[in-house]
Amino acid sequence: MDVLVPYDALSPKTRLEPILDEHERRSFAEAMLHDVLAALDPLPVTPRVVSTAPLDLNASVFVDERDLTPAINAALQVNDPPLAVVMADLPLATPDALECLFDRDGDVVIAPGIGGGTNAFLVRKPGFSVDFHGCSFADHREIAADAGLSVSSVDSFRLAVDIDEVADLAEVLIHGDGDAAAWLREHGIDLVIDDVGRVDVERHPGD
Amino acid sequence: MDVLVPYDALSPKTRLEPILDEHERRSFAEAMLHDVLAALDPLPVTPRVVSTAPLDLNASVFVDERDLTPAINAALQVNDPPLAVVMADLPLATPDALECLFDRDGDVVIAPGIGGGTNAFLVRKPGFSVDFHGCSFADHREIAADAGLSVSSVDSFRLAVDIDEVADLAEVLIHGDGDAAAWLREHGIDLVIDDVGRVDVERHPGD
Repeated sequence: MDVLVPYDALSPKTRLEPILDEHERRSFAEAMLHDVLAALDPLPVTPRVVSTAPLDLNASVFVDERDLTPAINAALQVNDPPLAVVMADLPLATPDALECLFDRDGDVVIAPGIGGGTNAFLVRKPGFSVDFHGCSFADHREIAADAGLSVSSVDSFRLAVDIDEVADLAEVLIHGDGDAAAWLREHGIDLVIDDVGRVDVERHPGD
Repeated sequence: MDVLVPYDALSPKTRLEPILDEHERRSFAEAMLHDVLAALDPLPVTPRVVSTAPLDLNASVFVDERDLTPAINAALQVNDPPLAVVMADLPLATPDALECLFDRDGDVVIAPGIGGGTNAFLVRKPGFSVDFHGCSFADHREIAADAGLSVSSVDSFRLAVDIDEVADLAEVLIHGDGDAAAWLREHGIDLVIDDVGRVDVERHPGD
């Protein structure tokens, strides 16, 4: 089965601007992509990165300059099912978590993201399409049901954590052991406990 | 096996103040507690609510006025293992997710919460203690390792989502189908999509 990994190579992770400059955001996004590809590597699937720009990567890369929704819908038109899509900003993904997704019954299987998103999915029959705006988890269930497709979801924290905002970086530092976690530590980004005992991240001055 | 469900009956969920008054916070916290007890109900375990004040509940309730950490440490001293602890603010918990926790190998098994917390755990040998301040997931792994206990964790989104802040309510509305989700809808709290396509919650005026 082909697994598409959509990747914004041009301006990734803009909401990390408070802590990372443009070059760093690109470099960190690439570290997360490496982690996702490493989690897919032991599984009997063929990862294909769908990138908005050419990438120098030891993986099959297809360039599609369109936004996420039209790019994935085009891929769903062109490729026969089964087909899976796994976002590139899931640095906590593990082979076990992805295997649960790929093994679960259902014409469409969704891994929900925190905040109503869709972080990964698998389609086994034609007729599904995506819309990543808004509460895409609910929308994708509805789109599948409207197309007469059965839907299920996987219960995975590791697939639910996508990295968009500075606060999300804490999850990488707590639970990650791949390139993204190493990248953050190398760039002086660490956990701190705030006044009320909650976890936050900060960047050491000078790093 | 006994499963302790710690519950703050006096001033629960203070960080929901922007959207719920004191009476409502207590009522909503009780709805979440019901959901947790309902998820435990089909499993071969004995739930025991450890409450900071007496509760009128169709379940075994023990009153312990102390804060979470000393109350749970006292329970770990008094009760022989195995013993599990499941927080009362996990309205997305399902029997399947809890069964994964209870079935997983390890002297100590932890269900991490978003933000470095510990939302549920199981101890099979004596010597473990808790400290819920700060990044308790990391601290609990360390405490277990220092006591010579093996530690594992479960990968569950449903156990990772604890409800503390207004933004967390979106998860209940998206993924919940129990008392807590019904309570929110009855009180006019619904999902909205903000200007940039992200999910948020709002309360209808007058509700």
